[in-house]
Amino acid sequence: MQESPQSTATAYTPTERTVPTRSADRASYDAEVVHAILDEGFVCHLGFLRDGAPIVLPTMYARVGERLYVHGSTGSRPLRMTGQADPGLPVCLTVTHVDALILARSAFHHSLNYRSVMVHGVAHDVTDPEEKQAALNALVDHVVAGRAADSRPANKKELAATAVIRLDLNEVSAKLRTGGVNDEPEDLALPYWAGVVPLRKGYDTPVADAALAPGTEVPDYLQ
Amino acid sequence: MQESPQSTATAYTPTERTVPTRSADRASYDAEVVHAILDEGFVCHLGFLRDGAPIVLPTMYARVGERLYVHGSTGSRPLRMTGQADPGLPVCLTVTHVDALILARSAFHHSLNYRSVMVHGVAHDVTDPEEKQAALNALVDHVVAGRAADSRPANKKELAATAVIRLDLNEVSAKLRTGGVNDEPEDLALPYWAGVVPLRKGYDTPVADAALAPGTEVPDYLQ
Repeated sequence: MQESPQSTATAYTPTERTVPTRSADRASYDAEVVHAILDEGFVCHLGFLRDGAPIVLPTMYARVGERLYVHGSTGSRPLRMTGQADPGLPVCLTVTHVDALILARSAFHHSLNYRSVMVHGVAHDVTDPEEKQAALNALVDHVVAGRAADSRPANKKELAATAVIRLDLNEVSAKLRTGGVNDEPEDLALPYWAGVVPLRKGYDTPVADAALAPGTEVPDYLQ
Repeated sequence: MQESPQSTATAYTPTERTVPTRSADRASYDAEVVHAILDEGFVCHLGFLRDGAPIVLPTMYARVGERLYVHGSTGSRPLRMTGQADPGLPVCLTVTHVDALILARSAFHHSLNYRSVMVHGVAHDVTDPEEKQAALNALVDHVVAGRAADSRPANKKELAATAVIRLDLNEVSAKLRTGGVNDEPEDLALPYWAGVVPLRKGYDTPVADAALAPGTEVPDYLQ
């Protein structure tokens, strides 16, 4: 693990595969935009090849500076494959937030407001124990900030059963659609309702496990 | 397009790549389970290869019987690639719903409740005009049931600008985690809160476009 924190990118350099073929105005390479999208989610879709065919696996992730971490059982396919691959496993990691439905007067202009990040690169097995522990903490804290310090840390057996892979944020782009309905001018007088239907976000009331130790309260970070 | 509706699968036959290497008890090949997960969502993550590297693209989809449809601009990469590929484009299409956070007393047993479907196969360009129009209607209705009939249908120019690809539901599996916290028995007395935090689902109040035709009301299917 590096002693000093990584320098933080301010923007990613577009590459041939991060420049979209269409709606280029929706693309962003700004690191703040990318980080914000990544930090809001905790489930990504990880793409890799198996026997030459694409696989898309939903899995948790966390960001630490300019690195993403994904973990899983040492027996799971992409984790095992990364450990065996030299110099790593080519992946595409995508995070998507859907914010609203866009109902246009025309079927053609129906759309979604969304924010997504696509990361291309090569995933590497994390073997340094310190980096691995920090990544596991980050994975827990990425879902609920403050939770890693308020749970029992992994023991040796659990650590040995868990693989962590790292993907650096180098070849990265965000794509966003925001705003309202974009109907054709000649469609505006049509008698169809048009507008934006926002998706509800957030959490419902936590449900405590039946066997909590006496006196255990719902922690502040869940309130 | 077939004249008669497709026969509906009752279960999908497991294959080497749809049998998970771990948590096999979470896998399902039941068609009702698979259909329900697919019908609840409208954004999938579509994996395909480009220049030998994996790409994971968030995009809308719809199910019609045992077929999934994805659409996009005729200029977008996977759509264009499918039209050019013979006999089609190998893809993996994944749909994921996250239902709850599982906060365990141990960091190791933190988890998510989720339901996902993974479809492996070869996507084909839809060239039959009738099937293409039905797929486009399904894509609109998949997001908001009843909406296709309550919007202006695509005209010739819009149809020509839109490509639709089809992926048959043959090699398919669902994976689900439900229930509560699975801590180790020796951890139960630890003083950490544990439980389930459900994710909020649904929609907020629709926001009408500023230029609606006079007298246009919010339709019943949005109430």
